[in-house]
Amino acid sequence: MSCERLTKEHAKKVMSETDHFLFDCDGVLWDGNGTIPGSVDTISNLKRLGKKVYYVTNNSSSSRDEYQLKCQKYGFDADMSDIVGTAFASALYLHTSNFKGKVYVVGNPGMGKELDNFNISHIGIGPDEVEQDNSVKYSDRVKSWLNTQLDPQVNCVLVGFDPFISYHKILKAASYIQRDNCLFLATNEDTHLPTQGSDIVIPGTGTMVLSVSHAARKKPLVIGKPETTMFDVLAKANDLQPSRCMMVGDRMNTDIKMARRCNLKSLLVFTGVCGIDDLPHNGLKAESFEGSDDSPDFYADCLGKFGEFISDL
Amino acid sequence: MSCERLTKEHAKKVMSETDHFLFDCDGVLWDGNGTIPGSVDTISNLKRLGKKVYYVTNNSSSSRDEYQLKCQKYGFDADMSDIVGTAFASALYLHTSNFKGKVYVVGNPGMGKELDNFNISHIGIGPDEVEQDNSVKYSDRVKSWLNTQLDPQVNCVLVGFDPFISYHKILKAASYIQRDNCLFLATNEDTHLPTQGSDIVIPGTGTMVLSVSHAARKKPLVIGKPETTMFDVLAKANDLQPSRCMMVGDRMNTDIKMARRCNLKSLLVFTGVCGIDDLPHNGLKAESFEGSDDSPDFYADCLGKFGEFISDL
Repeated sequence: MSCERLTKEHAKKVMSETDHFLFDCDGVLWDGNGTIPGSVDTISNLKRLGKKVYYVTNNSSSSRDEYQLKCQKYGFDADMSDIVGTAFASALYLHTSNFKGKVYVVGNPGMGKELDNFNISHIGIGPDEVEQDNSVKYSDRVKSWLNTQLDPQVNCVLVGFDPFISYHKILKAASYIQRDNCLFLATNEDTHLPTQGSDIVIPGTGTMVLSVSHAARKKPLVIGKPETTMFDVLAKANDLQPSRCMMVGDRMNTDIKMARRCNLKSLLVFTGVCGIDDLPHNGLKAESFEGSDDSPDFYADCLGKFGEFISDL
Repeated sequence: MSCERLTKEHAKKVMSETDHFLFDCDGVLWDGNGTIPGSVDTISNLKRLGKKVYYVTNNSSSSRDEYQLKCQKYGFDADMSDIVGTAFASALYLHTSNFKGKVYVVGNPGMGKELDNFNISHIGIGPDEVEQDNSVKYSDRVKSWLNTQLDPQVNCVLVGFDPFISYHKILKAASYIQRDNCLFLATNEDTHLPTQGSDIVIPGTGTMVLSVSHAARKKPLVIGKPETTMFDVLAKANDLQPSRCMMVGDRMNTDIKMARRCNLKSLLVFTGVCGIDDLPHNGLKAESFEGSDDSPDFYADCLGKFGEFISDL
């Protein structure tokens, strides 16, 4: 498979072959520090040239309407129907599976909102009981944990990004998952959020998913990239032809892997999680954590490079 | 390798070949509900017959002196020198590695006590800042996380059982681990604690370790079983011959695997995490999460069975 640094000639060819551009957001359009230079102009250029732009994000922290506001705040024009996030896609998955029951959510208000939109009942969002007394004896803690009251109606656990993750939440989620026929969904398994140049690691949803999964000894059904659910949703709603689509992302093992699975063209940018060392060299597989068997068709230092190449079209 | 249900004949042979018995505690001697019937008598019988008993536990929630009290409370006679837990073994590991620096501990007061015993400086134990306001915007949260102050002196992260595990603790631990030359230790990776008959899953240290490890994208050096550190410590202090030792445990992938690695005889009991379905059948590997390539020499429904077989010796 070719994997080449994007040139002006590539960019022109891509433009002639592509109607729909799908963008990962964090690490491509913006990061923890704000907009990534050149990204706003690139999106504007694509729109000027009649291309359709979609936002396809593993971020589960916002509902679609909140995400639309976020896009607009950063200067990216977006309709709600152009956005697919994992909070929305998870709720849609349950809805189309004709799910009846109650979801225990390790997550955030954005996820609750999307579930509410489909009238799916849920509990768990927000801070849970948090023990603050460090002098309690371990054996007394165990006794009190064993007395945890579980909701008899819960038959699904959905794990997404939860800043209030706690021991008690992990305990409840794992206990529900042990039930016969309890569905276990995860929005995504990202390791961390892109924060170029900071010495702080912002843990991603994978940290919550793995802790629950390890205690429950079961693997979740993952909704986000690299699974294909989010593209399937967009393709169905907008009648997309994979051969006329390109995915742009900052991660090999989510964005690019989904693109490969869905037969989309792909562009990897280095403004987020992956760098050039994550790419396979001379046919050898990259050994980095973020690397993958699936390499992108093209790579570029940043999305703005692509924008420059198409600015005079 | 033989893997047989323990009989009276086996038990007699084991007694003639063994001077030192190493016991895992939780799931063998007791569980979340109290003492496991027959265990106290078995230990007494072994001592009456002149055998030496050691307590070798992955539990990191107690220092050795606290663990001694716990043993005694449950009716198991134990000297402090008969006990090796992962809190002690981790501190000893740092001490014998001539560690200079400061440890960020995702853990509990027992771990702090053991580090103090070796004059190793540490921070992090107990509740951290816990955000309780669910209305804070995601982007504001990210901004505040990016402003987290890290201690410049920390050059080791040690993760053990922490009932106060939180997003902020995972963030700090992962950020420290990103530093050049920062050591990353974990006491153990157990999935959950044995709680026979309860529908509550009590998550084990593995849930904390994996969440930190995933965000940091690095694997820890694990001190507890199935690694051999804890046997090495005991063997050195007491001049143990592996061929004259037996390990008794409830988990294939920790207790029994360590026994195999150290060339100890092994007995698996079904009063904790593993059941008969975890054993390989007809030479086929068990597919359960807890199964392992390494099967025990013997298995029994409970430790009391062994006790019965040796009661008239």
